[in-house]
Amino acid sequence: MIESLNNERIKEYAKLNQKKYRDDTNMFIIEGTHLVEEAFKNNIVVDAFSLDDKYTKVSEEVMKKLSNLDTPPKYLAICNKIEEKNINGNVLILDGVQDPGNLGTIIRSSIAFNIDTIILSNDSVDLYNTKVLRATEGMIFNINIIRRDLNEILPNLKDKYTIYTTNVVNGTNLSDIKVKTPFALIMGSEGNGVKDSIASYADESVYISMNTKCESLNVGVATSIILYEFSK
Amino acid sequence: MIESLNNERIKEYAKLNQKKYRDDTNMFIIEGTHLVEEAFKNNIVVDAFSLDDKYTKVSEEVMKKLSNLDTPPKYLAICNKIEEKNINGNVLILDGVQDPGNLGTIIRSSIAFNIDTIILSNDSVDLYNTKVLRATEGMIFNINIIRRDLNEILPNLKDKYTIYTTNVVNGTNLSDIKVKTPFALIMGSEGNGVKDSIASYADESVYISMNTKCESLNVGVATSIILYEFSK
Repeated sequence: MIESLNNERIKEYAKLNQKKYRDDTNMFIIEGTHLVEEAFKNNIVVDAFSLDDKYTKVSEEVMKKLSNLDTPPKYLAICNKIEEKNINGNVLILDGVQDPGNLGTIIRSSIAFNIDTIILSNDSVDLYNTKVLRATEGMIFNINIIRRDLNEILPNLKDKYTIYTTNVVNGTNLSDIKVKTPFALIMGSEGNGVKDSIASYADESVYISMNTKCESLNVGVATSIILYEFSK
Repeated sequence: MIESLNNERIKEYAKLNQKKYRDDTNMFIIEGTHLVEEAFKNNIVVDAFSLDDKYTKVSEEVMKKLSNLDTPPKYLAICNKIEEKNINGNVLILDGVQDPGNLGTIIRSSIAFNIDTIILSNDSVDLYNTKVLRATEGMIFNINIIRRDLNEILPNLKDKYTIYTTNVVNGTNLSDIKVKTPFALIMGSEGNGVKDSIASYADESVYISMNTKCESLNVGVATSIILYEFSK
């Protein structure tokens, strides 16, 4: 049983709560019974810790040091990042989505509505942020998620995909869209929307018709509604 | 300028961060420039504080004591709760929704898709929770939101409304629904769904068709997609 907060292994792993160390090592921390199980099923576990004897036993203090949750979990694993696959099928592109809960929600909806690849811009929240992982409820393993410079990748997608984005002023009502597949849908951040340089790659823009009393929808909701409509 | 954390007014108001005191006094705290402005427009402000001279000036420490945010806001107001109006128009009923962010998101989507009244069950998260208020982005003032015992209110709604709920097993595909208005849509909590006793009041059940790899949608997303489809 590891009880010391100065244990070298624990000290190294605890650094993975910072994005910099996750990027440097290509590893991340996953927390909670269900997520740890999923990580094992997907053969990405490097090391695992528990408050009981299931894995390497650690004290509550040590678990707290590794964990990012208010209440430390019973099980926690150190994992290799999931391997990125080639871009395939229908694609969702997220330009600067910052909120971890929103990204988690969008990943769940993407799987529900048959997106095959999600491309995160370099300025989007880290996929391996604990809050993102929790919000996806383990579904992160069911979809190909990659991180790219959108300005580099979009010219290549342009030939193979019909590219959609949102535009309240010049768009087509979502309900009237006959979606052409394979498609790539670009969604922006909640505050700023899609950057102009990125939106310029779109072939068609859509808007969600709504009551003018509502200033805007949550970006997770807007993305999900468009994906729902595109999947019909 | 108020600098003392022991100031009686500040001590009393700080208690409003607890639901019990909000219920006892019928008051709540609203934070941030935009929300405070909206509160003034709606004539519910009892007292207001600021780090500058705009309202009663307070020190950062005092603002921190009143605030529920990690970074205390520049402006904060003490308000009377918004008056409940009679149930009218299309209705959304939330049975035990606990997550503040989800409730905030659902309120925004309800306004977007022409819901007139939201009924929260007694075991739902408090509307006046800071996180709910922030997630609504001030749109809380654009819709009638009331809190009731659902078992008491549903028999009365039954005569006037077509009541819908969700059911993955026996429901109709959402895309095939011809909604009858006025409607009341009952949505449940993320973990447990709609309670059986509450679901039994429904005239019709719907489900959102999705890839079987996805176990469930976020409740804010599911509610928003149904409201979007019902509003078409």
